[in-house]
Amino acid sequence: MGVIIEFEPIGLRVEAEAGQTVIQAARGMFTPESGGISAPCGGKGLCGRCRVRLVEGEFSPPNEVELRLLGKKGLEEGYRLACQAVIIGPAKVEIPSEALTGRQKLQLDGTDAAVVPEPAIKRYNIPLKTTSVDYPYSTWQQVEVFLAQNYGLSGLRIDPGLIDRVEALAGDDPVTVSIRGREITNAFMTGMRKPVGLAVDLGTTKIAGFLVDLETGMTLAAEGILNPQIAYGEDVISRLAYALEGEEQYSRVVQVLREGLDRLLHTLCNAAGVVPEDVEEAVIVGNTAMHHLLLKLPVSQLARSPYVPSLTLPVEIKARNLGLGMAFGAVAYLVPAVAGFVGGDHVAMILSSRIHEAHGVTLGLDIGTNTEIVLARNGEMISCSCASGPAFEGAHIQQGMRAIDGAISRVEVADGGRKLHYETIGGSRPVGICGSGILDAVAGLYRAGVINYNGRLDANHPRVRFNGERKVAEYVLVPLEESGVDRDIVITQKDISEIQLAKAAITAGTKVLLEKAGLKEEDIERVIVAGAFGTHLRLESAIAIGMLPELPLERFQQVGNAAGAGARMILLSETERRRAEEIARNIKYIELAATPEFSDNFLEQVRFPG
Amino acid sequence: MGVIIEFEPIGLRVEAEAGQTVIQAARGMFTPESGGISAPCGGKGLCGRCRVRLVEGEFSPPNEVELRLLGKKGLEEGYRLACQAVIIGPAKVEIPSEALTGRQKLQLDGTDAAVVPEPAIKRYNIPLKTTSVDYPYSTWQQVEVFLAQNYGLSGLRIDPGLIDRVEALAGDDPVTVSIRGREITNAFMTGMRKPVGLAVDLGTTKIAGFLVDLETGMTLAAEGILNPQIAYGEDVISRLAYALEGEEQYSRVVQVLREGLDRLLHTLCNAAGVVPEDVEEAVIVGNTAMHHLLLKLPVSQLARSPYVPSLTLPVEIKARNLGLGMAFGAVAYLVPAVAGFVGGDHVAMILSSRIHEAHGVTLGLDIGTNTEIVLARNGEMISCSCASGPAFEGAHIQQGMRAIDGAISRVEVADGGRKLHYETIGGSRPVGICGSGILDAVAGLYRAGVINYNGRLDANHPRVRFNGERKVAEYVLVPLEESGVDRDIVITQKDISEIQLAKAAITAGTKVLLEKAGLKEEDIERVIVAGAFGTHLRLESAIAIGMLPELPLERFQQVGNAAGAGARMILLSETERRRAEEIARNIKYIELAATPEFSDNFLEQVRFPG
Repeated sequence: MGVIIEFEPIGLRVEAEAGQTVIQAARGMFTPESGGISAPCGGKGLCGRCRVRLVEGEFSPPNEVELRLLGKKGLEEGYRLACQAVIIGPAKVEIPSEALTGRQKLQLDGTDAAVVPEPAIKRYNIPLKTTSVDYPYSTWQQVEVFLAQNYGLSGLRIDPGLIDRVEALAGDDPVTVSIRGREITNAFMTGMRKPVGLAVDLGTTKIAGFLVDLETGMTLAAEGILNPQIAYGEDVISRLAYALEGEEQYSRVVQVLREGLDRLLHTLCNAAGVVPEDVEEAVIVGNTAMHHLLLKLPVSQLARSPYVPSLTLPVEIKARNLGLGMAFGAVAYLVPAVAGFVGGDHVAMILSSRIHEAHGVTLGLDIGTNTEIVLARNGEMISCSCASGPAFEGAHIQQGMRAIDGAISRVEVADGGRKLHYETIGGSRPVGICGSGILDAVAGLYRAGVINYNGRLDANHPRVRFNGERKVAEYVLVPLEESGVDRDIVITQKDISEIQLAKAAITAGTKVLLEKAGLKEEDIERVIVAGAFGTHLRLESAIAIGMLPELPLERFQQVGNAAGAGARMILLSETERRRAEEIARNIKYIELAATPEFSDNFLEQVRFPG
Repeated sequence: MGVIIEFEPIGLRVEAEAGQTVIQAARGMFTPESGGISAPCGGKGLCGRCRVRLVEGEFSPPNEVELRLLGKKGLEEGYRLACQAVIIGPAKVEIPSEALTGRQKLQLDGTDAAVVPEPAIKRYNIPLKTTSVDYPYSTWQQVEVFLAQNYGLSGLRIDPGLIDRVEALAGDDPVTVSIRGREITNAFMTGMRKPVGLAVDLGTTKIAGFLVDLETGMTLAAEGILNPQIAYGEDVISRLAYALEGEEQYSRVVQVLREGLDRLLHTLCNAAGVVPEDVEEAVIVGNTAMHHLLLKLPVSQLARSPYVPSLTLPVEIKARNLGLGMAFGAVAYLVPAVAGFVGGDHVAMILSSRIHEAHGVTLGLDIGTNTEIVLARNGEMISCSCASGPAFEGAHIQQGMRAIDGAISRVEVADGGRKLHYETIGGSRPVGICGSGILDAVAGLYRAGVINYNGRLDANHPRVRFNGERKVAEYVLVPLEESGVDRDIVITQKDISEIQLAKAAITAGTKVLLEKAGLKEEDIERVIVAGAFGTHLRLESAIAIGMLPELPLERFQQVGNAAGAGARMILLSETERRRAEEIARNIKYIELAATPEFSDNFLEQVRFPG
């Protein structure tokens, strides 16, 4: 039996083995985004950034590395290095804010993936001699011979176009070449240029990009942009429909996406002070539709039942062929999808949350317009995708909005629904309500009895009124005088129905997976909730309306942009890359449309629990 | 000690081991082109095409395969299958004309490479089910799963562009996919389409192309075209000079070459009744300059001393990126060069002549404007290239011409130079003289004393006259009345000087290699003479003027377009491909410009021997 290590301020309890370091215990249990411990040096005891404070219990005595990096004073104050301190019994640990990553920050936040850098790109410095009659060997011949003699590398290949770019290198200054697999993909004068990679999480709405130092694993810049394809359809299906109108339309959506990605690359490079020509590899994860649209794969079969991807092999393609102005020979690696609505982003989420290696029963949810759910036990994984709709992104909700400034993001219902406390993002007057606010409101009103188990508003409640214009009952959240816009902010009967449909889809999907696995809700030992909404939602509210299983709160873990974290891990480590491919191959996909239990469960789950 | 097998009508004597089959004895000793035995099935006893007739001596008794394929009558007439008959003692064998390949035919002749087919392209037939809600897997997902489960293939990649091409394949008809290494490079409805490959020998003057059945190894079509770049410079240096005039000029020479190659591909496909989309791989050998020009590599360093190639790694590039309209995902493989004037064609020549595995001292010459020479012993190879000039291609010779109809190709000098017998190609009246004719004439006149050891014509000889107009002495080969053109056909003092310079370069190159290896001329056990001129020249003449070492004739072997044969072997067999790369890596290149012995030898060798 392991020992319990409790992490503050996250409140996460982790079961660890005596003999593990603190970072080993913390890894696997939560992603860097969700409150992992920053370890830029990969846990080698070099950077000192994984400083934590021992609040209760004991670790192994401090070692010399800790004394050097924390000082005597640091040690006296209870500080330890998470990569050095070894667990010997139960303990409570505080992660100082500077080492605590993600969580309170933006979902695309640029934290450092907790993997030992082991990138696909390897660099070699090669001394050169001037070509002459007495030494009649060209730059490349010298490179080839040097690599063979000093590193035993043979059977190498080179992108012929690269030769053209580096003709100027001939001389007697040393050159550096980058090798990926058997291919030489970059070459330049040896110097201080560091190898950099690009990790991208390609979403229907948002594209998150990260520039990563491939040597140290540090994230140098992080940036999110809206997917420029939004102009051609807000959701996946309408965007595919547009692309299917004709070749010209398809080319247009591909083009704007590629241009957007290239702009993101340049923005990241500016922020990090790196030239795009030094970006030597890209790893792209995304939902299946975005993956297909980026590669310009056939999508007609993706837009109609049974929504199958045209390709689920990993793709390696020259970045320049995607319009990315990186190093000339740089390759973009696209993490494979599992099914039409289970993409490489889900694979990356599973990887970074370590769901694939969890021993106990683990449920993972990535809540969005489509919610991907995975149920794992001892490496066996089944997954499904359910159409939960865009309600939690604020769409299809009367006064819904994205989670940006002015959105009501937290609601407390008091005094039987007659009083209401709320918070807005940025603290300004409310202008609308975002997903987490809607969820809180519906859950609170249900608990207060303002909404019954069928979702009906109590017409006699003092804050419920009938809107004659819209012919719908509504509950007034914020009266005009408090509102930041010139109207009351309300939740309508229709809004509640949208939430019911969304939660019914998610719950039914979860139940189908449990039934297929012969498990019950209470068997679930861990629930990973990923994605922007999933990270900001209040777990109690989600449990109250039955969207998440009724389990003790400590079994839950909200992991932020776990897909983005996974993308960076795959970029940084060939081992993680192989794992991602294994995950994609091993997941058993359940098509809910072919599962009668789903419809049964769905109808049942429209009601609220209890 | 081995036993001697003599092959007729070639007159070649081969030392074989008892226990070898006839084809094993024949292989290694001469290439298919030079008089090899046709074995389309790779020597498996399937096709019966390696029929030979035992003229003297004995083989093992005929087996059942021979009885079946040759019939009782065939056996009674002395016919045997070279792949079945086992050597038990000395014998004389006649190769019937239908099994005799090359030699008397065009240098590009389409004979079958004597290797067991083991192509880089592997095909797999895959059953498909119709995609449905109950079976929600796309064509490619099914392909992936089938290959993993039935062949253990994982980690595959696919050219994303290929997906687009085969969308129409979705259905329940089986598909065939082609895999090259880890990459899926082709896919189509399973059917009778055979896998075909293209082998190309890319010369400065001529391009030889071969379409090869990758399953049987049979050559389906062979065709030679003039290199269309000739319009931009006859020889390598003038062509490079043109390319270096500017980007536009460079693009033009690249473009015409690629277009020419694509036309050759289509011509070959028409001849063989194959669609270009079924051509799944190309192997291209060529001299270094043509290799660079095809790939559009930097060439400025190739046009000036010390003439180094910009790249000597093997190149794999999508054929479509070279403008070749083959199967969409098809790859072109370019055999690596060794040095600026020792190209992949020389590597292919060494491979097909088996020089790399010769135990005895072996000299290989590929005579052309530049003559590549290799000296091998026990797998150690040193090579050089010498500027022998275009005299043997008929250029720089007063009445020289290419080896085409009307060219004097054979000359016998009789009666002290007063009489002359000659042959022309095609048997028509002579219009000029080609390389082999010039060589015969100079050798004959030297032996007759009409030319002295300094190369001077005897001014007092009845057929020698002084041409006042050109201010040069000349020997009348063919008087006006016999000539096919309205003039005498002559050899001038200047022509003789050109031959002296050419032979001096070749001989000096050979001597430098011998000196570097610490060997003497008489140590050479085998001399391989390759190329069009090398195959048609009369050995006695070449020896008489000192261009080839003075050795017994049976040590010589004229092997035709051995580079083309090598290209086909590399196309057909991955083992041969690896060998070619090893050869290219292992050859030690001697830069004659940096070798003082070369100039000394050269001056000495301008004189004729004796």
